[in-house]
Amino acid sequence: MKIAVDAMGGDFAPGAVIEGLAMAVTDFPHCEFALVGHQDKVAFYLEKYGLAGHPRIELVHAETVCEMSDPSAISLRAKRNSSITVCARLLKEKTVDAMVTPGHTGATVAATKVLVRNLPGIDRAALAANMPSQKGRFLLIDAGATPDCAPRNLVEFAIMGDVYAQYLFGIPNPRIGLLSVGGEDVKGCELTKAAFKLLERAPINFIGNVEADTVFEGVTDVLICDGFTGNVLLKGAEGLAKSTVYWLKKMLTKNAMRLIGATLAHNAFRELKAIGAADSIGGAPLLGINGICIIGHGGSTPTAVRNAIRVAAECVEFKLNNRIIAKHNQLLEALGNDLYVSGK
Amino acid sequence: MKIAVDAMGGDFAPGAVIEGLAMAVTDFPHCEFALVGHQDKVAFYLEKYGLAGHPRIELVHAETVCEMSDPSAISLRAKRNSSITVCARLLKEKTVDAMVTPGHTGATVAATKVLVRNLPGIDRAALAANMPSQKGRFLLIDAGATPDCAPRNLVEFAIMGDVYAQYLFGIPNPRIGLLSVGGEDVKGCELTKAAFKLLERAPINFIGNVEADTVFEGVTDVLICDGFTGNVLLKGAEGLAKSTVYWLKKMLTKNAMRLIGATLAHNAFRELKAIGAADSIGGAPLLGINGICIIGHGGSTPTAVRNAIRVAAECVEFKLNNRIIAKHNQLLEALGNDLYVSGK
Repeated sequence: MKIAVDAMGGDFAPGAVIEGLAMAVTDFPHCEFALVGHQDKVAFYLEKYGLAGHPRIELVHAETVCEMSDPSAISLRAKRNSSITVCARLLKEKTVDAMVTPGHTGATVAATKVLVRNLPGIDRAALAANMPSQKGRFLLIDAGATPDCAPRNLVEFAIMGDVYAQYLFGIPNPRIGLLSVGGEDVKGCELTKAAFKLLERAPINFIGNVEADTVFEGVTDVLICDGFTGNVLLKGAEGLAKSTVYWLKKMLTKNAMRLIGATLAHNAFRELKAIGAADSIGGAPLLGINGICIIGHGGSTPTAVRNAIRVAAECVEFKLNNRIIAKHNQLLEALGNDLYVSGK
Repeated sequence: MKIAVDAMGGDFAPGAVIEGLAMAVTDFPHCEFALVGHQDKVAFYLEKYGLAGHPRIELVHAETVCEMSDPSAISLRAKRNSSITVCARLLKEKTVDAMVTPGHTGATVAATKVLVRNLPGIDRAALAANMPSQKGRFLLIDAGATPDCAPRNLVEFAIMGDVYAQYLFGIPNPRIGLLSVGGEDVKGCELTKAAFKLLERAPINFIGNVEADTVFEGVTDVLICDGFTGNVLLKGAEGLAKSTVYWLKKMLTKNAMRLIGATLAHNAFRELKAIGAADSIGGAPLLGINGICIIGHGGSTPTAVRNAIRVAAECVEFKLNNRIIAKHNQLLEALGNDLYVSGK
């Protein structure tokens, strides 16, 4: 098994990526790697982490980098030789079984869309973000890959989420909820109302509509929505968490007694922060493309990179995409052409 | 000026509503009130708060109540004589200048849509939720009244938000941001891309796209989005805040030292909680209908009810709807028929 690793992705590239790769090389002896990045920029870190000339690492040169500030569409056209595009090309050519990038989500979605294409039958890709709940974790699908969705897209996200959640949570029948603005099926928007009717007939454990105020309680294993709404929920949660830390700090430093209290309870705040940014997750899979692609957070630590590589390898071993295709066939048997119903 | 108050709305009705009304009767001597509710159920509280037979309070009987669990559409049909529907009827007949309900948002939207109708030129109503940011507050419009929007709806929400923010924040040119999934105008969904082009030409202080992770930092005074996305952002924030309290409690009670720390810093947590549920806000206006309607939170305290009544009275004095109509005329001058561009 061979995994392409984007050395230039993320805020701490290439140092953090190569340090993470060093952990992966030791921990996953059955994996080979294609390290994609500018050869001059990675050389120092390969030396530093004892990976120079390593027999299981092939160095693939990429001239440019997609900066986080680059618009996705421009990145693909103007930066044909960016590390993300080169990774996607390796995945397309089946030179590698999977790719891992802690970088630019938009650019990765654009590059894989054009180069790697989708799995047969799957209309649009979806990003599965791993979110915290009071009872553990849940998957938010789509977290931003496909902002405009038809009903079939949400149903296909549900199929893919079902398969991925089986791997990730190790449960046979993950609960699949549809993000909506009301508990009854009469509520919602045109898109969710049309998708609801299809999801009821899909070969999954569909639990119905789920409102956003209950998702963090852990009422569902998979939360399905269009990529616009999903990205707003994801980013909104990140933003509110950051602001909560800001407010908490401000209020805990108002007087000496509170400061002493905060100091005594310091470890509790550290643990609270860790809920949001769990390094153990590694990254979010881009589901629906004809290959395995794991996208890490821009702020990925070496441990997060190592775990993104672990997830990529496990997805290959789990035969994730074969299972998605099989499940999609079941879906077609259940729904037939009804899957292609129109709806905003 | 006369204001209809829904005595039966909210979790603590009618007690909390009538206690709030008692405060309003004292604080706003220029206002008369129509208290709408079941006469047998309100009698005790009118007596208790010294309002029985008060010259500025007319008691209007309403046979039924919209329970929070009632679907909106059914509430309107099956419960013609619910307190919300009776309030909407008084507003329609211009018997009152404004209505206040701490109750069922969906039922209120449905009742006002059918009975009160929209302002001339305004296609859809929008709920303006008052949200906390690091720099103060911002308005989230639409928070759930119109789940499916055309571009013109978002532009009309912006016009209404501009006028309401001028009243609420006392600033002449409130910043209006469009909730989207990217900073550049090429990103977003079909709806936001089409709305963006119109908003650039609208007679408002349009600051462009705003991503959800920055809204709680206070980057905009008004945040415009469709009612589905807005409701998800609002409810998601409420849910995450509740879960954060849950996690914080769990982590602060893990050992004795943390418990002592938490006790010393207790007031800081109290202040943090207050950010989310500010009684001073009172309620959210339903903008775009041909009357003033303020919807309070289901958990409204007497102070919150009193302040919702204050907001209703101030909106009447501010001539909110006349200003919205004037601003909409300016919009039509600027955009003409382009306002009616189609787009998902």
